[in-house]
Amino acid sequence: MQAALDSLITEAERFLGSRITTNGSIRETHSHGEGSSPPGMPDGVAFPETTEEVSRLVALCHARRIPVIAFGAGTSLEGHVNAVSGGLTIDLSRMNRILAVNPEDMDCRIEAGVTRPQLNDHLRDQGLFMPIDPGAADCTLGGMCATRASGTNAVRYGTIRENVLGLTVVMADGRIVQTGGRVRKSATGYDLTRLFIGSEGTLGIITEIQMRLHGIPEAISAATCQFDDMTAAVQTVIEVMQAGVPVARIELLDEVQAEASIAYSKLEGLRPVPTLFFEFHGTPAGVQEQATLTETIAKENGAVDFAWAVHPEDRARLWKARHDAYWACRAMRPGFGALITDSIVPISRLPEAILGAKADIAASGLLAPMVGHVGDGNFHTVILVPPEPDGFERAWALDKQLVARALDLGGSCSGEHGVGAGKRGFLLREHGAEALDVMQTIKAALDPLGILNPGKLLPAVGN
Amino acid sequence: MQAALDSLITEAERFLGSRITTNGSIRETHSHGEGSSPPGMPDGVAFPETTEEVSRLVALCHARRIPVIAFGAGTSLEGHVNAVSGGLTIDLSRMNRILAVNPEDMDCRIEAGVTRPQLNDHLRDQGLFMPIDPGAADCTLGGMCATRASGTNAVRYGTIRENVLGLTVVMADGRIVQTGGRVRKSATGYDLTRLFIGSEGTLGIITEIQMRLHGIPEAISAATCQFDDMTAAVQTVIEVMQAGVPVARIELLDEVQAEASIAYSKLEGLRPVPTLFFEFHGTPAGVQEQATLTETIAKENGAVDFAWAVHPEDRARLWKARHDAYWACRAMRPGFGALITDSIVPISRLPEAILGAKADIAASGLLAPMVGHVGDGNFHTVILVPPEPDGFERAWALDKQLVARALDLGGSCSGEHGVGAGKRGFLLREHGAEALDVMQTIKAALDPLGILNPGKLLPAVGN
Repeated sequence: MQAALDSLITEAERFLGSRITTNGSIRETHSHGEGSSPPGMPDGVAFPETTEEVSRLVALCHARRIPVIAFGAGTSLEGHVNAVSGGLTIDLSRMNRILAVNPEDMDCRIEAGVTRPQLNDHLRDQGLFMPIDPGAADCTLGGMCATRASGTNAVRYGTIRENVLGLTVVMADGRIVQTGGRVRKSATGYDLTRLFIGSEGTLGIITEIQMRLHGIPEAISAATCQFDDMTAAVQTVIEVMQAGVPVARIELLDEVQAEASIAYSKLEGLRPVPTLFFEFHGTPAGVQEQATLTETIAKENGAVDFAWAVHPEDRARLWKARHDAYWACRAMRPGFGALITDSIVPISRLPEAILGAKADIAASGLLAPMVGHVGDGNFHTVILVPPEPDGFERAWALDKQLVARALDLGGSCSGEHGVGAGKRGFLLREHGAEALDVMQTIKAALDPLGILNPGKLLPAVGN
Repeated sequence: MQAALDSLITEAERFLGSRITTNGSIRETHSHGEGSSPPGMPDGVAFPETTEEVSRLVALCHARRIPVIAFGAGTSLEGHVNAVSGGLTIDLSRMNRILAVNPEDMDCRIEAGVTRPQLNDHLRDQGLFMPIDPGAADCTLGGMCATRASGTNAVRYGTIRENVLGLTVVMADGRIVQTGGRVRKSATGYDLTRLFIGSEGTLGIITEIQMRLHGIPEAISAATCQFDDMTAAVQTVIEVMQAGVPVARIELLDEVQAEASIAYSKLEGLRPVPTLFFEFHGTPAGVQEQATLTETIAKENGAVDFAWAVHPEDRARLWKARHDAYWACRAMRPGFGALITDSIVPISRLPEAILGAKADIAASGLLAPMVGHVGDGNFHTVILVPPEPDGFERAWALDKQLVARALDLGGSCSGEHGVGAGKRGFLLREHGAEALDVMQTIKAALDPLGILNPGKLLPAVGN
């Protein structure tokens, strides 16, 4: 392996110069994401600036059977980027050019290393935005595609899956493939775009993305709404969705998370009880109509407070608090670790899923505030992990219980964080042996040497 | 081959009885769809009633290397169902059970032979509907999935791709695979659901579908709007889309189609000029707002008439006229054949695409009225084919020109009718050799004997 690696570095230095390295601290920062999966040190890290450079790098690795791991911003929560078998990590952060914006077609073409805030800053003057908004502030669009990201706005705008028109992908042997195109729909050929979205770097490395964009809404308003019990909060969400209100975001905070966020983000006027955050997008009259209907439904379900955040700065404070939920949790127990869970169920099963999860948490003796994109049936807990020898074991045991319950209720083991290394063990139960076998067949056909992000997404054969 | 077929029939009769046949007239009705592709007679036709029966049939064919063609309602326009290499056609029309409707989750599970009107009739009392509405009145949902169907409502509700949560699929060797699930989103595993959608029966046979549903809008209104020239009509469409009006349908009829439809559908008050049909869905106030903004944009672009169809019967008449556009064309030239084209371009290129297409039609000397789902950049012409020896050759030559222009403009050779047998020749140009090679690799991995709908979708290797 070492001789192969040495020759890879030597060959790659010819076209990358110092943009390929075996420096220990750089390898260390590329050995993990933000989750709790065991880190894995790559043997080298490359910083290509073009698709052609990625292609040449992958071809060199292919010829030497060296693992290749794509790395965006390193915000993964399930160990997607950890080089568990060593190999070369390809850091795409220098591929951050916005190649074209087409306001008439409301689309754009970008390199995979462009970050969400970078793209939206660039688009703002043209009245456009890219709505997919996972919690990770600086995630790259390439990483979002690879993990099938979604986040708070998905209830209205869909996930990344519905917002990508086409991709440029470097295959396991270095070939460059264009998928999809620029049209809004097409009925020609297998949907390679959707095959690569969510494939977590195991089928190819995404280097360019053709994205759909949306017009910045003429009017936006937000509201908070508090309940004395969780069932009423969840029932409100179900009824708002059924009423067809095109709400842009509905986020649920349980009483523990509400307490944490009130303290951390200094949210005045809120009490530590189950709380919903809403955001409405549309014309001024449309937003008013959505909000009025939502308020009516909430009050019929016993909402005790329904408060408007009409000023942009109030809205921004609210959503910053939501995005800071993780840090608010961490601040509750300084010195503790954290394990973030991610479950999703059909929306009708949310009451059982959430009340069951809260019972599991109580029984575990652990502290685990809950937040969720409940309009999609998706919710997270942040399990605060005691600094004790068995702390993470206890947290993982609770995580397993939460996943098992979601699967029992017809759900999925991940709404948006992906499989990575952390959730491979749940795939057989979720998808069944036959579907996993089809996935394994596709993987073997497109990456016969198994060099692309080994140890991720698919369970080891035979498991 | 004959001995293999005889043994297949004998084996299948044991569990299907008279539901497998070699009757000549039944084989003939299953030898073609509604398009102009050369027919292909299957050697037998089976009418299974369960996924297990489909599985057993496919396994029998697999063991004998006999081609298998899935058949829904036979409304394909590109020869998808034609048994060009003989084999067994599996007619899924008896698999027409609606297995479950979940109003709280707004989803349902159905067998593949359920038709669009059957499903919507069933859902109506629950205030739900399935919005995908291709022109073919009685198409099955299985066929719609297999061809990645869309139609008039796609501009608001997406195509079938965005409205399917999961599938049951019988693989080439007879294995039964469940894809997706019931949740609105998931980040676990390769997107097999989207891989089968649009695969035209070449990767597996879809037998059950988990569909997303939508609430029947509280208010619906429709409008017609006429222009003295085509450019103004197309510009109106572009501006309405850019304004973010969530219009449910925008259909364009050119002056030739308008003349045909006025005569055939007795549309009073319309003149034979470029015409837009609109439909708006939402709350009463929301629909009013959408319609007012659309009317303003249309009038700024020189619309000469903007007429409302508020009564349900007027609306129904309008959309019946739109769906009867094909028959209106045929009535213009009794005794002529018809070839339906299907192009799509980025919406900014619609003026060039449509004006260029009209120039091509004029130069061809053929009559070809134009209709289109222009909110998506998608338009069709119905080329009326003279009953002359070279009639179809002239029509195909014109079709080729229209496709080439769409591809030149960054479009696709099919927005919604699919590839089938008819459009395989365009795939290399549209997708490139590398993407086609990836598709061929997937096909070879999942159907190594090549028994699933041979001669469809992918060009022959080496082409």
